[in-house]
Amino acid sequence: MNNSSRTDLSTLGEFGLINRIKSNTSLRNKESIIGIGDDAAVLYKNENEYTLLSTDLLIEGIHFDLTYCPLVHLGYKAVIVNLSDIAAMNGIPQQITVSLAISNRFSVEAIDELYKGIEAACKKYSVDLVGGDTTSSKTGLLISVTAVGTVSKQKLTLRKGAAENNIICVTGDLGAAYMGLQVLEREKQVFLANPDMQPELFGKEYIIQRQLKPEARTDIIHEFLSLSLQPTSMMDISDGLASEILHLCHASDTGAIIYEEKLPIDPMTYETAREFQLDATTCVMNGGEDYELVFTLPLSDYDKIKNHPSITVVGYMTPKHEGVKLMSRGGNLYDIKAQGWKHF
Amino acid sequence: MNNSSRTDLSTLGEFGLINRIKSNTSLRNKESIIGIGDDAAVLYKNENEYTLLSTDLLIEGIHFDLTYCPLVHLGYKAVIVNLSDIAAMNGIPQQITVSLAISNRFSVEAIDELYKGIEAACKKYSVDLVGGDTTSSKTGLLISVTAVGTVSKQKLTLRKGAAENNIICVTGDLGAAYMGLQVLEREKQVFLANPDMQPELFGKEYIIQRQLKPEARTDIIHEFLSLSLQPTSMMDISDGLASEILHLCHASDTGAIIYEEKLPIDPMTYETAREFQLDATTCVMNGGEDYELVFTLPLSDYDKIKNHPSITVVGYMTPKHEGVKLMSRGGNLYDIKAQGWKHF
Repeated sequence: MNNSSRTDLSTLGEFGLINRIKSNTSLRNKESIIGIGDDAAVLYKNENEYTLLSTDLLIEGIHFDLTYCPLVHLGYKAVIVNLSDIAAMNGIPQQITVSLAISNRFSVEAIDELYKGIEAACKKYSVDLVGGDTTSSKTGLLISVTAVGTVSKQKLTLRKGAAENNIICVTGDLGAAYMGLQVLEREKQVFLANPDMQPELFGKEYIIQRQLKPEARTDIIHEFLSLSLQPTSMMDISDGLASEILHLCHASDTGAIIYEEKLPIDPMTYETAREFQLDATTCVMNGGEDYELVFTLPLSDYDKIKNHPSITVVGYMTPKHEGVKLMSRGGNLYDIKAQGWKHF
Repeated sequence: MNNSSRTDLSTLGEFGLINRIKSNTSLRNKESIIGIGDDAAVLYKNENEYTLLSTDLLIEGIHFDLTYCPLVHLGYKAVIVNLSDIAAMNGIPQQITVSLAISNRFSVEAIDELYKGIEAACKKYSVDLVGGDTTSSKTGLLISVTAVGTVSKQKLTLRKGAAENNIICVTGDLGAAYMGLQVLEREKQVFLANPDMQPELFGKEYIIQRQLKPEARTDIIHEFLSLSLQPTSMMDISDGLASEILHLCHASDTGAIIYEEKLPIDPMTYETAREFQLDATTCVMNGGEDYELVFTLPLSDYDKIKNHPSITVVGYMTPKHEGVKLMSRGGNLYDIKAQGWKHF
């Protein structure tokens, strides 16, 4: 290796690194339909279907904190984040592999707890655990999950494909997982200061559950089918709505306008944000880990979803030159900027 | 979690842990054909083919040592070990995903080197890098690779399926990767004791290459096709021949006899083992990381492979009650016992 120049990884950031890898990659195989850059890779399966492939790495001390994340929930969540990526392509997950690196401080009983959560997620989503690798780790716990899913060729939905005037929809409510994390972090600090204190989580159950035990919106994928809806673009909300809207606009070559007053925020999220002197909208836009879906539809589909209890229209796609904007309650336009996760 | 009992992971070992996970797992999905327990999972693809799925985790300080393993080779090897698992099912690899956890001590240039190796392996084996995940790590480097391959339904080869009197064949030569590791470890110690010393690797090129830059025997999979050979059982040799023979016998419900004098050992492996006062046969049986294939064939296929330069017949399958034995050069029978890797 040439050591003459050294560029710090932080100068690239995660998305920069992904783009760098992607730009050095070409697809040779006619069965590789779509590679790096969407929520999942798309592979040829048969005449009617594609195989979807998605993978995520969860690392102790970076993605989770075992002080407040029970292993059974961690196992569950590690599966969910991957199933969510398959759903984001309008696909149905079918199999997962789970690889673990485990340090000696974990007992067999602890690993059983972790797998209990993995198995619970598999059962709920009718997914099979079909493989993996286990090894020791010198430090903490590491979980690498790969999910495989299927989508019919006509249903495949990418980040690109949205058009001007398409409506932008999100599922569920947003920002709750982030506020749940704030509560858990606060109680951890209280506990560290005084180990006799019991954590005060009463009245915060919903947002804590959203953080510790998220769900993947495969239910919405089935609804799309029964409502004959074909999203024009879609991804899952893992890094916060701001980051995801920017991805959809970038891939689809559009601008967008999001209305602050339309953002679906649970009252508990809102109250807790106030308690923490945080702006709820900022939590929604930049919080992350909601694992809801954001997708676009032709305006003509509006009637099909306008009364749907789990779908909210939050804005629409605009011409690219109009930029990606948030219209505040006060009627001011702000540029949407990604924060997402900064790993490096 | 119930903390009342605590069982150390080391009491289970890696295979014990895999068996424990496997026994708690059931397949719900009719498209999940074979789950945990073979070299790769087998999934329904279409009328004529199965999809193969394999995953491996490589961790700094456990699976590799960057003191003597250049990043470009590490990237190459991380891909190869997974392609080897696909070959072991008589399949052809088509895509991989690569996830990385990287600490700040790695520069962009270092990651470029790693991907140069990944890309070189992809190019050589006509495989596409289609996805992955990148994140920071608190300590070292971690690589998680998942490989996807295809096998025609009639060609799928499992660990089970061998019958009594089937001949046992191996590809290439064995034990070289292990001896290469011994040389590299020795030179590392010399270097640590005196950083001015240059490593003495002259004359050890082949075995060092076998350790640092192994290959996957997809060439043999193509040969099977052209020779109209259908192995009755197969796996790749990653943990040493002893461990793999035991797996094949266990899965196929057979015994086996392996002839020490037949084991294919490169002269450099043999010489180096002598130099280190190691028994070359032990290195072959328990060394690991050769990434050759071991497979069984009906005796009637013997003529097709007897003069093949890359295939050696090392023994045959026996009735289960005769056990799994090594016949020494001196004519003594020894039980074959697995050592493999002990991670915990």
